[in-house]
Amino acid sequence: MISDGRTRIRHPLGAPPGTLIPLGTGGSGPVRIDVLSFDGKESEEQIGIAVETAEKHLKDPRMTWVTVDGIHDPQVIREVGQAAGIHPIFLEDIMNAMIRPKLEVLDSQILVLMKTPVYDEQSKELVLRQVSLVVGPRYVITFLEQPTDLFSPLKKRITTPGSSISKKDADHLAYALMDILVDRYYTVLDTLESRTEDIEHEILDNSRESLSLDIHRIRGQLIILRKVLWPTREIVRSLLRDDITSPENRLYYSDIYDHVIQLMDHVDTLREIVSGLMDIYMSSISNRMNAVMKVLTIIATIFIPLTFIAGIYGMNFSHMPELDWAWGYFAVLGIMVLVVAGMLYFFRRKGWL
Amino acid sequence: MISDGRTRIRHPLGAPPGTLIPLGTGGSGPVRIDVLSFDGKESEEQIGIAVETAEKHLKDPRMTWVTVDGIHDPQVIREVGQAAGIHPIFLEDIMNAMIRPKLEVLDSQILVLMKTPVYDEQSKELVLRQVSLVVGPRYVITFLEQPTDLFSPLKKRITTPGSSISKKDADHLAYALMDILVDRYYTVLDTLESRTEDIEHEILDNSRESLSLDIHRIRGQLIILRKVLWPTREIVRSLLRDDITSPENRLYYSDIYDHVIQLMDHVDTLREIVSGLMDIYMSSISNRMNAVMKVLTIIATIFIPLTFIAGIYGMNFSHMPELDWAWGYFAVLGIMVLVVAGMLYFFRRKGWL
Amino acid sequence: MISDGRTRIRHPLGAPPGTLIPLGTGGSGPVRIDVLSFDGKESEEQIGIAVETAEKHLKDPRMTWVTVDGIHDPQVIREVGQAAGIHPIFLEDIMNAMIRPKLEVLDSQILVLMKTPVYDEQSKELVLRQVSLVVGPRYVITFLEQPTDLFSPLKKRITTPGSSISKKDADHLAYALMDILVDRYYTVLDTLESRTEDIEHEILDNSRESLSLDIHRIRGQLIILRKVLWPTREIVRSLLRDDITSPENRLYYSDIYDHVIQLMDHVDTLREIVSGLMDIYMSSISNRMNAVMKVLTIIATIFIPLTFIAGIYGMNFSHMPELDWAWGYFAVLGIMVLVVAGMLYFFRRKGWL
Amino acid sequence: MISDGRTRIRHPLGAPPGTLIPLGTGGSGPVRIDVLSFDGKESEEQIGIAVETAEKHLKDPRMTWVTVDGIHDPQVIREVGQAAGIHPIFLEDIMNAMIRPKLEVLDSQILVLMKTPVYDEQSKELVLRQVSLVVGPRYVITFLEQPTDLFSPLKKRITTPGSSISKKDADHLAYALMDILVDRYYTVLDTLESRTEDIEHEILDNSRESLSLDIHRIRGQLIILRKVLWPTREIVRSLLRDDITSPENRLYYSDIYDHVIQLMDHVDTLREIVSGLMDIYMSSISNRMNAVMKVLTIIATIFIPLTFIAGIYGMNFSHMPELDWAWGYFAVLGIMVLVVAGMLYFFRRKGWL
Amino acid sequence: MISDGRTRIRHPLGAPPGTLIPLGTGGSGPVRIDVLSFDGKESEEQIGIAVETAEKHLKDPRMTWVTVDGIHDPQVIREVGQAAGIHPIFLEDIMNAMIRPKLEVLDSQILVLMKTPVYDEQSKELVLRQVSLVVGPRYVITFLEQPTDLFSPLKKRITTPGSSISKKDADHLAYALMDILVDRYYTVLDTLESRTEDIEHEILDNSRESLSLDIHRIRGQLIILRKVLWPTREIVRSLLRDDITSPENRLYYSDIYDHVIQLMDHVDTLREIVSGLMDIYMSSISNRMNAVMKVLTIIATIFIPLTFIAGIYGMNFSHMPELDWAWGYFAVLGIMVLVVAGMLYFFRRKGWL
Repeated sequence: MISDGRTRIRHPLGAPPGTLIPLGTGGSGPVRIDVLSFDGKESEEQIGIAVETAEKHLKDPRMTWVTVDGIHDPQVIREVGQAAGIHPIFLEDIMNAMIRPKLEVLDSQILVLMKTPVYDEQSKELVLRQVSLVVGPRYVITFLEQPTDLFSPLKKRITTPGSSISKKDADHLAYALMDILVDRYYTVLDTLESRTEDIEHEILDNSRESLSLDIHRIRGQLIILRKVLWPTREIVRSLLRDDITSPENRLYYSDIYDHVIQLMDHVDTLREIVSGLMDIYMSSISNRMNAVMKVLTIIATIFIPLTFIAGIYGMNFSHMPELDWAWGYFAVLGIMVLVVAGMLYFFRRKGWL
Repeated sequence: MISDGRTRIRHPLGAPPGTLIPLGTGGSGPVRIDVLSFDGKESEEQIGIAVETAEKHLKDPRMTWVTVDGIHDPQVIREVGQAAGIHPIFLEDIMNAMIRPKLEVLDSQILVLMKTPVYDEQSKELVLRQVSLVVGPRYVITFLEQPTDLFSPLKKRITTPGSSISKKDADHLAYALMDILVDRYYTVLDTLESRTEDIEHEILDNSRESLSLDIHRIRGQLIILRKVLWPTREIVRSLLRDDITSPENRLYYSDIYDHVIQLMDHVDTLREIVSGLMDIYMSSISNRMNAVMKVLTIIATIFIPLTFIAGIYGMNFSHMPELDWAWGYFAVLGIMVLVVAGMLYFFRRKGWL
Repeated sequence: MISDGRTRIRHPLGAPPGTLIPLGTGGSGPVRIDVLSFDGKESEEQIGIAVETAEKHLKDPRMTWVTVDGIHDPQVIREVGQAAGIHPIFLEDIMNAMIRPKLEVLDSQILVLMKTPVYDEQSKELVLRQVSLVVGPRYVITFLEQPTDLFSPLKKRITTPGSSISKKDADHLAYALMDILVDRYYTVLDTLESRTEDIEHEILDNSRESLSLDIHRIRGQLIILRKVLWPTREIVRSLLRDDITSPENRLYYSDIYDHVIQLMDHVDTLREIVSGLMDIYMSSISNRMNAVMKVLTIIATIFIPLTFIAGIYGMNFSHMPELDWAWGYFAVLGIMVLVVAGMLYFFRRKGWL
Repeated sequence: MISDGRTRIRHPLGAPPGTLIPLGTGGSGPVRIDVLSFDGKESEEQIGIAVETAEKHLKDPRMTWVTVDGIHDPQVIREVGQAAGIHPIFLEDIMNAMIRPKLEVLDSQILVLMKTPVYDEQSKELVLRQVSLVVGPRYVITFLEQPTDLFSPLKKRITTPGSSISKKDADHLAYALMDILVDRYYTVLDTLESRTEDIEHEILDNSRESLSLDIHRIRGQLIILRKVLWPTREIVRSLLRDDITSPENRLYYSDIYDHVIQLMDHVDTLREIVSGLMDIYMSSISNRMNAVMKVLTIIATIFIPLTFIAGIYGMNFSHMPELDWAWGYFAVLGIMVLVVAGMLYFFRRKGWL
Repeated sequence: MISDGRTRIRHPLGAPPGTLIPLGTGGSGPVRIDVLSFDGKESEEQIGIAVETAEKHLKDPRMTWVTVDGIHDPQVIREVGQAAGIHPIFLEDIMNAMIRPKLEVLDSQILVLMKTPVYDEQSKELVLRQVSLVVGPRYVITFLEQPTDLFSPLKKRITTPGSSISKKDADHLAYALMDILVDRYYTVLDTLESRTEDIEHEILDNSRESLSLDIHRIRGQLIILRKVLWPTREIVRSLLRDDITSPENRLYYSDIYDHVIQLMDHVDTLREIVSGLMDIYMSSISNRMNAVMKVLTIIATIFIPLTFIAGIYGMNFSHMPELDWAWGYFAVLGIMVLVVAGMLYFFRRKGWL
């Protein structure tokens, strides 16, 4: 399908506010909850725990990182929400993978809704996966639309005893997570850029009909990236401007900000280049048609007069003096050769040969 | 008709201000007035009441929701306006379905003019219906351009004894109504999006001539949606910013705001995709022409030289040595086969076969 | 002429500032001055008066509305200017019909330069006529580029004894005049919209060559409307914001403001739709060419091979066995029928028939 | 050459700041300095004076207007600069005709760099000439890239005894000069507008190939005008806003401001119209191709079948019964007439004839 | 390769912040460090020194300019960073040649990341090279992505005894360096402009197919220049606005600012002109196709009817009266001449000949 990459809007009409309805392409199995606690010295990782266990960890004075691996089960989301004291209207946002990236601050909690892009090399489709962060004083909860191993290197760094990140606060963990999510865009953009280059090369080679669709699809994917990067930029700007993050993390968040700006720059540049491709494609079609027409014109223009001459002497008039001349046939053949030579000269002068 | 979806402007020239003239596509029958009173404990619904009855309800300390099912009868609008103390210039706006969405605040009353989109699957036309809300301290009056069952689920929720909405104030009822109106755009946008996908598929299949008109029409409909969502956004922003709504409802209105922003985002994305479709359509026409030209060129280029050769030996010269050769005919046939083979090889090398 | 609708700039080079030079398409005859005085109870209308008479009326405590029916006579403009105490640099603006709409406030006088559009159904040209208003404490002077009966209904309302407008102040009279001028745009826009619809229908029917010029012309006219509505909006906004109008008229001016915004919205929508028309027109030309090419290709592809076969048996070789077969001729006719059938099958499969 | 109208950038690499290098298309001869002193009563004009004489005049309590007729001689510029106390970095700007219009204020001096457009009717090229004004308390110095008689009418007005301008201050003289420079744009724009109209007419008549280049060139010239008007607007706005000009001249400068705004409006309108022309041109080429194809198709479609029929009866089968029928030949001619009639009917129904 | 000019993004996924990874197209050999110390009287230049020597120089009260000729060796960068007290996160930026130009101020150090464009005449590719400036109280350190002789003239000016620049402070040296970097854009823009003119000329001459790619490539290069000039402008504006530079250098920086603005202006103008070229190219292809079609149509339209006539009299009917007429053959030839004359007249009237 052409447009799978676009986020389709499916919205329940007339539902009262606060209703928890999963909106997204998430899975259907049971939702796994993992927890990782650390305090700079040692770390403790637990996989597949119950909500109550997670609740205990959240009250732990150590830094706690809870991962909820799916947003399609309202029951689990509600329980985790109650355990962490998340406002119901935020829970609704967390379950709604159709929502734009956004930042909400309420009391001591920060809610960050972000998207991470996934590009399927096979089907050449771009999908956005929602990742929500709930950042509290000593904990970060991540809600993932789909299980992902994106955070494995970070987990490894945290569990490495004495690593710098394991000594940092919740703000810094949130930064590290957001940094990974933003980095993902580079990879996708890189892929789109090399696909654009492939198309550039292909256009002059054969300009198969589906190239226009390929260009259209990349353009659509760049529009989606642009639309999701814009609010992402707003989120980071708010974090920087509104004194939400601690001063020592300011520099790190400003690094993410630079990245998002740079990504938007690249998306814009690529969009302009891709939209230029359509023009080249159109001109290459026209050039090809021109080439076809020239072949037809050259052949027709050379042979139609010749056939006419042959036709003349195929007439059956009883009185046609040339027919009886001994050298008549060869004279006609000679004339024909002259006509062909004249035509070829004409085409060469026109630059068609 | 192509452009029924566009709001046609019909404006009476030179009428003095305050003249009540119905402007819209509303009906012509008598205007029905319904009322729904509730106080969190019990609710009372009356259908088809007189204006005087409605006036009594408006003074009721219970929450009152009055619905006026038509804006084409100046007499009724004037009476309701007097009963509720609505400024005459607002009444003019309420009756004018051609006006942009807008918000007016006067003393204790808030006037919200909104549009809800209706998409006719049959004729593929988009119509905007005006819904005006007059929000007072303890009442909401809705003026509908056309009767609609859009609000039935809300009515059911209110009349359900002990439901949360039945305990809320007028601000909240207004929110609930606006939420329903905004949700409507999702449905219409969803339809337009799937129509766009259909066209994407169709372009490569057959590119019938009317496809360009279909693209044009969807583009026009998206422009209309954009133009009506923009002032809607302004309305909700004003409600949020200017301390018009009560603080407890702020969060709900901000939810509508998110929705409107998201809708505008989607409309913009879709507009860019739709405008890309025109390019694909043009390139597909050109590709098709190329294919036609190639068939013509191949046939002509193969047979014109052959016909010429046949023409040569159809000439009636008395002295044509080849004609008398025993194997002359077969030699010519052989030459023709060689010419055809050469041409086919040439076309294959050009990639035309 | 194609571009009559555009305001051509004719500017005298090097003239010192304050020189009164008529710039516009105004007439050449004598300039008529009319006056209408009223005080809510009775009204007095005088037509074709001398400047001195007008001066007396201007000092009248009654409301006075002076109409100057032409701006091409520097003498008259200068005298009226002196009588009403208008700054010379304003007089220059009043005579210059090439100027953008603008608002100037000096002491107790407000100068409003507006344009009213006139659409000539015959030549399909759009002309902008300048109407300047000088609003003083108890008078309004209107300078018309061309005589018009646009204000007749207003005059009738004023002269109707006891009408509400006859009791209002100069601000309100200015409002009423501006309202009429703005309403005019609705009519013109309506005409342009229905012309756009006509073109939509025509494109698919016959796409005559001049359609592209028609589209171009409408686009040009919409650009002109946009360019003139923008400063008009600024004028009304200034009047609203800068406490120039009295508070009781604020609501009325805000009504004009809504109208101008709505007009700009409509112009923008229409412009996008019109610019889409050009695409459809182009694609319809291409489709038409495709159809022509298909006819040529079908005919040529069917008959060229047949002619070749006939050519074969038209050759005069002395040894051509088929020629002597009794059923040779009919066999060849049979083969030709098969070729035709094959071709038709091929075209049907390609979807060309 | 196509693009002579564009200001080509030639910049010396690595030169230290303050180096005086002439950048522009100015002449090469000796630079003439003229001076005009006046005090409202009498005026004194001197042509071709030495720098020292100019210096004396600058200290004169009378108003002094010094004209430097060329900016290509660093020596002269440096001497004049020292005489008038102009900052060296300003002198660099004055000599650099490649710079954008700009305004600099330093102590008691105002430096205004402006461009005046020159349109060469012959070569149809647009050139921008730099005119710099250095405005001091009692003097104005104008540096001209090229000698011009643009200011002759102004000189005449000043030297007219008792003229109003001869009594005004340096600010006012600067205004008068800028007014003349701005007025120049009207003339050029007028020319471009009438050229646009010519092209509109020409497109439908013959659409010669170079029309696209003509459109391209006008578009380029309008871009240049836009780019130079924008900073010009900024200059005038700064002069108005920043209390640089005296209050009595405010009204005059605001007049220039109106003119610049109006010019930008016109440039924008014209740009949109010109860019629409390209579309019309493209559609006219396509229409022309359509016409050519129709002629070919009609001729080929009529004669190819006829030639085939003739070919049939040109075959030499020994057994072809029709050949021996007495009326065979005439029957075939009759059939051919019927075929032609059928084809013509078909084309007429298609609307091709 | 088509798009070498674009900065390709290669970003290491999941690396912790502060990791020094060279990102760019820099070399691989050892990194050379040069130092130039001066105090207005004498200067001392050392080439290829050790980091420790550089450190000593940095503490020197004389002005010191250290050049690091490569950013691909993390070891060297780290050591230089420690010697000069540069924040680690800045070192990361310095090594990342993929980053946008940016300005960072921390305590007494200013970090300026700039790009200088390099245009390869051979491959017609545009590359951006990063140059980072670290400006301290009495030193400037430049990190170059690639060795360059861009700064040689500046070095010569500094080492010239008694030159003005050798007496200035670090701010001024930074200005001189930035000025050189910005000047570089003029050269590149000049090249792009003359290439654009070449293409303009070429389009009408032969419109070879790769012209569309050339236009596309220039467009891409202009987009890159635009994207890099924008943040450069921001850098200079910050330097001017935020009191970072000393007042005496303000005028110089404002000169750079003017240059950057002017460059952006030129890039924009050129972009609009280049995008217009594509239209001309398309129209020239269509014109060429038109010419081809006309030749085909003229030839076919003249000879097809003639061939038909010849075919008629090639039929073998036993009863064809014309064949026996003595002048039949010549009559037919005469008719053919008339047909040709008629066709030629028709084509001449159509303006095709």
